[in-house]
Parts: sequence; structure tokens; C-alpha cells
Amino acid sequence: MKILIIGGGGMVGQKLAHKFALSGTCGNQAITQLTLADAFAVPEFTIPSNFPVKSVVADITNPAIAQSLFTDKPDLVFHLAAVVSGEAEANFEKGYSVNLGGITNILEAIRLTGNGYKPRLVFTSSVAVYGGPYRENIDDDFHLQPRTSYGTQKAMSELLLNDYSRRGFVDGITLRLPTICVRPGKPNKAASGLFSNILREPLVGIEAILPADKSAPNYFATPRSAVGFLLHAATLDTSLLGDNRALLMPGVWGTVGDEIDALRRVAGDDIVALIKYEPDPAVERMLANWNFPRFVSSRANSLGFTAESTLDEIIQIHIDDELGGKIPGLEK
Amino acid sequence: MKILIIGGGGMVGQKLAHKFALSGTCGNQAITQLTLADAFAVPEFTIPSNFPVKSVVADITNPAIAQSLFTDKPDLVFHLAAVVSGEAEANFEKGYSVNLGGITNILEAIRLTGNGYKPRLVFTSSVAVYGGPYRENIDDDFHLQPRTSYGTQKAMSELLLNDYSRRGFVDGITLRLPTICVRPGKPNKAASGLFSNILREPLVGIEAILPADKSAPNYFATPRSAVGFLLHAATLDTSLLGDNRALLMPGVWGTVGDEIDALRRVAGDDIVALIKYEPDPAVERMLANWNFPRFVSSRANSLGFTAESTLDEIIQIHIDDELGGKIPGLEK
Repeated sequence: MKILIIGGGGMVGQKLAHKFALSGTCGNQAITQLTLADAFAVPEFTIPSNFPVKSVVADITNPAIAQSLFTDKPDLVFHLAAVVSGEAEANFEKGYSVNLGGITNILEAIRLTGNGYKPRLVFTSSVAVYGGPYRENIDDDFHLQPRTSYGTQKAMSELLLNDYSRRGFVDGITLRLPTICVRPGKPNKAASGLFSNILREPLVGIEAILPADKSAPNYFATPRSAVGFLLHAATLDTSLLGDNRALLMPGVWGTVGDEIDALRRVAGDDIVALIKYEPDPAVERMLANWNFPRFVSSRANSLGFTAESTLDEIIQIHIDDELGGKIPGLEK
Repeated sequence: MKILIIGGGGMVGQKLAHKFALSGTCGNQAITQLTLADAFAVPEFTIPSNFPVKSVVADITNPAIAQSLFTDKPDLVFHLAAVVSGEAEANFEKGYSVNLGGITNILEAIRLTGNGYKPRLVFTSSVAVYGGPYRENIDDDFHLQPRTSYGTQKAMSELLLNDYSRRGFVDGITLRLPTICVRPGKPNKAASGLFSNILREPLVGIEAILPADKSAPNYFATPRSAVGFLLHAATLDTSLLGDNRALLMPGVWGTVGDEIDALRRVAGDDIVALIKYEPDPAVERMLANWNFPRFVSSRANSLGFTAESTLDEIIQIHIDDELGGKIPGLEK
């Protein structure tokens, strides 16, 4: 089985690649080749694997370059590449070019390959496809009413993937990811970054700025769960999906205040004291679009997707996976 | 006020242009110029008007040509041009190129004009953006789950128009039109054409083929109402719409059987006898996606959009507007 990860240089793409390297298989099939494509040079892949791992720099906004990723007909494709929400809002043209133009070029490359080529394509969307006013709950069938350009691009991409799948050009599945938390590494331009920042930085003893009110809610899953979703989607029987191939993934709903309470339980008052409240009107405007009610992922649950069930668990997984099981902030 | 109608050579575009020629105004503003753009040469415009009427052949799938339609900065733009549902299903590339590429190029032309240029753009979408399984009712907030490429293209266009409007590049409004019935003239490639054919042909004494079961439902409004919707949308206070600028238009729900019953009441048994039932599996497959429940257009109603309330009225309006108030089929 040949696997292509578009966005293979990103945080989730790298974790997924590591997982493949360690297991050597996807489902019950041996992996024969893994290609990591990204707009920027992917860091050298140092995990030993029993299959070749190739890194390519590829600008998917160029149709010919997108096409070149499919010359060796990968059996399984992950499309994780995206301009994040804050950047898509700040740079209108880039957002549409990468987030909508990218998947358009990928789908067209697959369709134009022809000769019965019909790979599984796992695409990551986001809860940013939703917008208020809300009903009591949000589920798979809640209407798409994005309030950001990023959410619009993801919603349009979902519709496109559904249609290409319905027409038989690709075997697509869209995962509407919760906000990934705790996101490791440096802050990125995602508007949702603050929900990770206020946990990640204090845990290592660094002050974090909270630019929004404690009442701001979001919907969370760990990087470990995100990788689990992708692996599960890779081998899922897509005939179970019907025509709506977009699935809301499971996660944990909580407010900034809930996050802080969980951080206090897991790491104590001194760590929580490192969070400084400095409201930023621009961030608060964006968050006002995300006053999410509860999410109901029963369709994904029944298909076997799983995630954490508490914010405490989410923080502990970060400590285990990224900090070697210790809280460096407590040792300062 | 300068007005541009893209799709100005089509049935609804021509009726709208005639209406403008007769009134000389739009809302309370005098019209100073009307441009009718279409992919094909628009028939010569013979209605006298007190403003110049210009026809242009323009392929909106070409960004530069789309841009050329905006050099004189029309104040009001109607985008009615589309590849119809049957054709978009049969010709995948053409459907996306015209139905999604077209509005993309138009929105980009407007955005790139800049200098505060922000026209009202009235865009016609369709109830084909919906798909089952349905709730009891469909309203503006029912989720977009198209089951055709045409419906997908319209749904994606709606999202794009919402985002360009939210970003302040255009003052857009989308009208989700019911199936236009009775559509005058020759049958076109719209899958929904049969709902008009079985009324239009018998009324002039010609046999009509019914390729689908009598139980097939649809949602109807006359061409007269469609023009009324467009005129109302042209001057509506769009600040009332919030971020969701797509409005389900009012109409009459009914099945093929309801249409036949109404035809019998309006025109008699001899006219109804001209309908021949010849099931076509391809048509029935397409209609299976359109097993619409009732539609609730309360948002549009409260904003002042109006339509017919019975199928009898719809048939009578066709007789009045297209047949000079008589039923030629009765005179044969």
C-alpha cells in the first residue's frame, strides 16, 4: 500500500507518519511507500521504517504540481494541508488559493488520472464550518453556516468531496476535527491557538496570555486522537456513510474556564498562576462566532471513532506524549 | 442606476429586462443603462425603453471576460446564468466551470475592482441545494446536502457569496428558487423540466410524456413570481439578512398528481388526456433525490417576498402571461 500525506510536514502529518513508520502497516496491509508532501521542506524523517519514506515540496495551488503527486497512484491519501483560520482571514487570496484551490486541484488530479484509479482520500475539515445561531446541539446535519473565510473554504471543500465521491471519482471521507488541544510546539496563526497556549506554556513554566474571556467555549481533542481519527478513517467501510461523507469527530466540550479548572486539578495553583488575562478585541470578535453549544458526534461514535472524555485526560495526554510524563513548570 | 443581467438571454433574464424596460425604474431609482450578458447572442431587444439596452456575449468562465463586464461598474447585478441540472450531471467539467467558476470569476471581478465598489448582487440558487433524509420541513437553515453536481455547485456558490458579503466585497443575496413552473418555450435539460412539460404541452393540444410517477413532489413558482423575487431582492435592506444571505423563496408544494388534478380543474379532462405515462429510470433516479417534504419560507415571507398559493393559480398565470388568456388545446 502506497500512502501520500499532503501536509505531511505539519504537526498532525508528522505524528501520523511516525505512527506508520512504527507499525509498518495500515489496517491489515503492509505499507510499501510513504510520501510526505508539503509546501515547505519537510524535516528529515529519522524514524526507522521498513518502507521508503520520501519527502517532496509541492505547491498544491498549482494544478500540474498537484497532478505530479499522483503519478505513482497512491492507494491512500491524507489531505491535511491548510492555511489556518487566522491567516485565511488576514490573507483572503491565499486562504482561497490553498484551502479551496488545493483540494480542487487534488480532486481533479485524481479524477483525471482515470483508468479506474479511485483512492481513499481522508480530508480534515473543522468545526469552523458551523456558525450560530445554534440549536441546542450541533450534529453532522447541522447546517453549514461558517462565519470565517477558513470555515467557508472547509465547508465548500466538504461539498466538493461529497460530489466527487458520489460521482465515483474518489472514495472520500471528511473528518470535522475538534480544535486540537494541547497543540505542541510554537503558537501558530490559528485563532483557536489560545486554547492550547494557556495550557502548554504554563506546564513548562512560561507565562501565557489569555486574550479572551473565560466563558469562551470550544470543542477539543488531542493530537493523539486526531491521528487515531485519521487511521480509523483510512480503513473505514465508506459504504456506511451514504452521500454525506463529512463526519463530526468526537471530542470534549469546554470553556476556557473549564480548561483552567482542569489545569489546576492536574498541575496545581502555581501553574495556573502563569496565565495572564489580557483581552484582545480582535480575538474576542472571532470567538464570538464560536459560541458553540454541545456537539453530538453519535454518527462518528457508532462508526468507531473515539476520543478523550475529559479535559483532565486531554492535559494528561499532553504531559505523557510531549513532556515525558513530567510537568517541567513544577520543577522551576 | 446601471443594471447588469448575467444570463440576460435566458427566460427569466428576458422577462426581467422587459419589466425594467416597461417601468424605467428599479425601486425608486431611474435606470440609466441595462446590459444583458449571456454565453450566447441575446435575441434583439425590441421593447422600447427610455434607457440604452446593450447586449454582450460573455463567457464568464474566463476571468478576464468576467472582469470586462464590470468596467463600467454596474450598481445592480443579477447573476442568473447556469448550466441546468441535467446538463451539469451529464457534463461534469462544464457544470463546475460555468456554475462554480462563473460566480467565482464574477465575485473576483467585483472584489478586484476595489475603490469602494460594492454592488448589489442578486444570485439565483435552487432547492437542489437540499437533499434527504429530510426533517418534517425544509427551511433556510436546513443543512445543505445536495445530491446532484448542480446542487453542489449552487451550495458552494451560496457559501462563497456569503463570505464575500461578510468580508464587505459585495452586497450579495441568494434566492433559492422553487422549480419554475410553468416554464414557457421548449423543454430544456433541467431534470425538473417534466413538471412544466406535462402542463405546457397539453394546454396547447400537444401530447406530453410523463417519465416519472405521479407521487413525485416538487416546489413551484411561476416565472412571474421569479421576476418578482428578483425585483424585490434588488432593493431589499440586506442588513436584515445577517450573515446568511441565502433565502428560500415562497412557492407551492405539490406532486405530479396534484399538478394533474389542478390541470383538470383549470382545463378539463380532454387536456389531461394528452399526458402519457412512460417511466424513465434515469429520471426516476434523479427524482428520488428530490422527495421534498413541505418547505417553510417564513424568513422570505417576513421580508416581503410573495408567490402563488395554489397550483390552479400557477396554471392560470401561465395561460394569462403566455397564452393570451386562452387555452389553445381546447380549440383543436
